[in-house]
Amino acid sequence: MTVGVVGLGLIGGSVVKSARKYTDSIIFGADLDKNTLEKAINEGTLDGALTCGNMKDCDIVMVAIPPFATKSWIEANAEHLTGTTLVDLCGVKRFICDAAKPLAEKYGFCFVGGHPMAGKEVSGYENASAELFKNASMILTPEGVSDEKVAWLREFFLSLGFGRVTISTPEEHDAIISYTSQLAHIASNAYIKSPSAQRQMGFSAGSYKDLTRVAKLDARLWTELFACNRDYVTEELRVLIANLNEYLQALESGDDELLQQLLQKGRDLKLSADGKQ
Amino acid sequence: MTVGVVGLGLIGGSVVKSARKYTDSIIFGADLDKNTLEKAINEGTLDGALTCGNMKDCDIVMVAIPPFATKSWIEANAEHLTGTTLVDLCGVKRFICDAAKPLAEKYGFCFVGGHPMAGKEVSGYENASAELFKNASMILTPEGVSDEKVAWLREFFLSLGFGRVTISTPEEHDAIISYTSQLAHIASNAYIKSPSAQRQMGFSAGSYKDLTRVAKLDARLWTELFACNRDYVTEELRVLIANLNEYLQALESGDDELLQQLLQKGRDLKLSADGKQ
Repeated sequence: MTVGVVGLGLIGGSVVKSARKYTDSIIFGADLDKNTLEKAINEGTLDGALTCGNMKDCDIVMVAIPPFATKSWIEANAEHLTGTTLVDLCGVKRFICDAAKPLAEKYGFCFVGGHPMAGKEVSGYENASAELFKNASMILTPEGVSDEKVAWLREFFLSLGFGRVTISTPEEHDAIISYTSQLAHIASNAYIKSPSAQRQMGFSAGSYKDLTRVAKLDARLWTELFACNRDYVTEELRVLIANLNEYLQALESGDDELLQQLLQKGRDLKLSADGKQ
Repeated sequence: MTVGVVGLGLIGGSVVKSARKYTDSIIFGADLDKNTLEKAINEGTLDGALTCGNMKDCDIVMVAIPPFATKSWIEANAEHLTGTTLVDLCGVKRFICDAAKPLAEKYGFCFVGGHPMAGKEVSGYENASAELFKNASMILTPEGVSDEKVAWLREFFLSLGFGRVTISTPEEHDAIISYTSQLAHIASNAYIKSPSAQRQMGFSAGSYKDLTRVAKLDARLWTELFACNRDYVTEELRVLIANLNEYLQALESGDDELLQQLLQKGRDLKLSADGKQ
């Protein structure tokens, strides 16, 4: 099997490292940073550079770069993809799928949206790991794709270490991810803005660390992700602010019975959500 | 050295377990649940029950129960504490210190407010661990207490596994803790209330897990903690909501340049706060 990966950052780098470690694929890669590409080739993670010439030889090509760049890359390279299967690894799916599907039809390649549910608060090839996907969920949005192809993709991603493959639609993906990932990044990034954050030394334990871990985000990348999912993430943020205002009103009015009810309801919903794991 | 602990839950249980493992103290304990007390004695963690009779024999008595109960306990037992050192382990300090200090003066014991910066999202003696305090910060508010006594307390808490002792005042403690701990619990408890939380299976990774970990809180305990720190926690919650509203307005108006600036500022503040570790 021959695998191509565009973008050797945290995600793309982890794809090629896990493919090298856990499969016997031939692996081609591309990156704007020539040093990264050379390093990946020299250390034996890649068999060579992914080029317009060898793209068609790939059984699967994965694009692991930000949304706007992914759209541009697919538009620029669609003519070289005929016959292969293209999976993007972006954090938004409607924006990418809407752009890619007409091109897949026109140029005769198979396109499937993808989103690995794995990450770190650091980026780049040097932080990529063959173990990043261990037990994680790989989301696929294979609309209009044959069951055989989906089964083949499932087997491929499980071979990289993923614990499960979750089949979804671009619409469902964007709705749920706006909450589980995007809202979390906004909440964490807002949380750190209290002046008290700069006085936390010696006064913090796990809850502060957890709430602020992903505050250290790539502002440009996440602005793109939010822009491509504006409707859902805006609605989730409205819901969070409305819920927070309920606690605020209980605190301001001194209604501790209401405050306890609000906290108990949150506890119950957390237990319910955990039960659905 | 003789140690007394009131309340054998997660915190008090971890105090007696770490004191047993890492010191050669004589350890007495008290708990409203007779089964827990018997278990701690039978397994050898305690040398016996803490009673009105043996309290004065203790070099240090620690109270590890909720704020209202702590206040009541100190009021009821002050007369038995003459000559010893009392440290409470509550998550709020002004409320406890205001109540305890006059009694300490009246009955001739030394009172120091304390707050171990360690916890779990589970409770009870069965979840207590001799390793809970490993590398954690122990906050003390030793106003009006001699340097020798503070040095002695520092040594004692370091012997339980704490990585550092942070000296503070009740006022400073309550101000910072309203952010690092209390606001985190409200934010997490509110975060889980989106209907999307019940659809997260297969669509979540680290950021969702981190944001919702402490949503599973003890509603009654945390209502007490918030009530005893209402001014500070209310102000922190106002600040968080105001910051979240800035992102919301940027999203709603489609001002992605502003959105990116907001995200970059959060990232910078996180790096700054981390640099102060």
